Amino acid sequence: MGGNTEKKSLLGTAKARLKAVMSAMSGLDEIEAIIKDKLVSESELLCEIPHYLLTLGGKRMRPALSLMTARALGAATHPPPLLDVAAGIELIHMATLLDDDIIDRSPLRRHKASPYVKYGVESTLLSGDFLLVRAFSLCARLDRFVIDATEKACIELTEGEIMEAPLDKFSHTVETSTTIARKKTAALFWLATRTAAHLTGHSGEVVEHASTFGEKLGIAFQILDDILDVTSTEDLLGKKSGIDIRERKPSLVNVLWLRSGSPGAKILTSPNPITDAELDAGLTELRASPVIDEARAAALRYTAEAASALDSMARLAPNADSAAVEHLRTLIDYTVERME
Amino acid sequence: MGGNTEKKSLLGTAKARLKAVMSAMSGLDEIEAIIKDKLVSESELLCEIPHYLLTLGGKRMRPALSLMTARALGAATHPPPLLDVAAGIELIHMATLLDDDIIDRSPLRRHKASPYVKYGVESTLLSGDFLLVRAFSLCARLDRFVIDATEKACIELTEGEIMEAPLDKFSHTVETSTTIARKKTAALFWLATRTAAHLTGHSGEVVEHASTFGEKLGIAFQILDDILDVTSTEDLLGKKSGIDIRERKPSLVNVLWLRSGSPGAKILTSPNPITDAELDAGLTELRASPVIDEARAAALRYTAEAASALDSMARLAPNADSAAVEHLRTLIDYTVERME
Repeated sequence: MGGNTEKKSLLGTAKARLKAVMSAMSGLDEIEAIIKDKLVSESELLCEIPHYLLTLGGKRMRPALSLMTARALGAATHPPPLLDVAAGIELIHMATLLDDDIIDRSPLRRHKASPYVKYGVESTLLSGDFLLVRAFSLCARLDRFVIDATEKACIELTEGEIMEAPLDKFSHTVETSTTIARKKTAALFWLATRTAAHLTGHSGEVVEHASTFGEKLGIAFQILDDILDVTSTEDLLGKKSGIDIRERKPSLVNVLWLRSGSPGAKILTSPNPITDAELDAGLTELRASPVIDEARAAALRYTAEAASALDSMARLAPNADSAAVEHLRTLIDYTVERME
Repeated sequence: MGGNTEKKSLLGTAKARLKAVMSAMSGLDEIEAIIKDKLVSESELLCEIPHYLLTLGGKRMRPALSLMTARALGAATHPPPLLDVAAGIELIHMATLLDDDIIDRSPLRRHKASPYVKYGVESTLLSGDFLLVRAFSLCARLDRFVIDATEKACIELTEGEIMEAPLDKFSHTVETSTTIARKKTAALFWLATRTAAHLTGHSGEVVEHASTFGEKLGIAFQILDDILDVTSTEDLLGKKSGIDIRERKPSLVNVLWLRSGSPGAKILTSPNPITDAELDAGLTELRASPVIDEARAAALRYTAEAASALDSMARLAPNADSAAVEHLRTLIDYTVERME
């Protein structure tokens, strides 16, 4: 990756460049305001839980992707429907975070108690339903195209989650693992870029390339997440590492580890709970294993496909803004950089 | 209730009359077809669970209420959007049934294994999310009025569920219990009658009376359900009786029992699980207690309010069909009759 190192030395890290782009970007504050506006209920608890989740921070990657795509396609200002959809997408994402912690039994989120630990499983689940209803009704007020896309993405989220059976219960393959990543993570990226292209007046091929760009970036993003679960530390993750191993998730890393035939990977399909010692041994083995390089290579194929779709989108869009297209490339570079 | 007995001898039971009305009613088959049409997913399990729920039967009370209200307001045929909303409301209702069994830990539904017992908690919850998305997108394709009403009803469902803290955790009153009944049950009745009035071209007072009719009927329906949980048998309920006691639900019956000061009601607020013997003793006491009459009197106030709103609606609607209005009165009579 000499090319990338060179780029880094010339332009600074992608992380620093992306941070600069995002802090100069208008629209994110309005989206945050729309989100907070929708957190209204006669039940204080229904709103308190999402508010708590908001205080934990987060990159607001999906709304940023909506805004950056609209800019790249030449929108000088953000049309109000775009801000509504972007807020809706973040609300849907928040709903999935509430569910994910419960499914992963993760006690921590961003170094703090995860919502279900603080508020209990039932209230957290209901709060997720509340967010989903608020999100869907934001999108429902728009046109048929947006409603269809929102329905498709939300159905894929539930499909991705139900297909995510643990490795001791179902024999996953690279294909099923990738399908799950596409459905549970890339669906919202796809929705963000697809609706951004549509709501800035585009149709046909531009919309399809924009959608593909979002989807491929989303898959790469999920694989990156799977890799970081192994290679990163609790300090950087804000939660314990190795959760995917402990919960025997069909992450690409786990599926490749099993496929490698390594005796260490047998903990993923054994019927017994994984002990702390087994988890530590597994993490140590994986960190030095070619499995991580294999997963990284797969993610890089998806970032390359994302870059290619982005090129096609920019080439075909009549008013493409080349500086803003460059910002989307920075987002791809950032995903690649985090894998190094 | 001499007047009602007399009516029965002249016209047959309300149950028999309602059955005759519903079997002669067109539209229910189309609604069933729309529901089945929306149960499509790449994940077989997501559809298998709602299909299983459909095979367990059910009265399709909410779609019937939509159709009967439209007829009463003079609609000669059912406009397609009305059929879509009615199907959407039944899908939302199905989603809440999936959740309710989990919350109530009820092993049976209509004499068969309840869905979560058959398919597990996680898949059943995801299937509920799937139904909610499908339902909302059916309603989202309609106008702003329908979307607003659907959002309000769905938000109230989550509010009702989160407010339904058990009696050992929260000090409920008749007021909080009624609010919960209104939100978790009456909201969908309200949505059915409100959208039926709107989609048959009505506005203003007619829509408001129709909405009130649905809401009051829904509250009476929930109180009836609370009463039957005590007075009925497993054979008739299709599940164990006394679930509201065992789960310390803030049902109106339980709240009135606690307020009565009966020593037997202390099991509702004790910190220990309720034993089978305690549950049996509680049921025996309650069945012979004035608490049931008090709850019945409350329900009858709501059926009277529903009847009064129905009268106002019929008086103000320019094309009201008096025979079809009579069918809605039969629905009220049926609710009253089941309490006897």
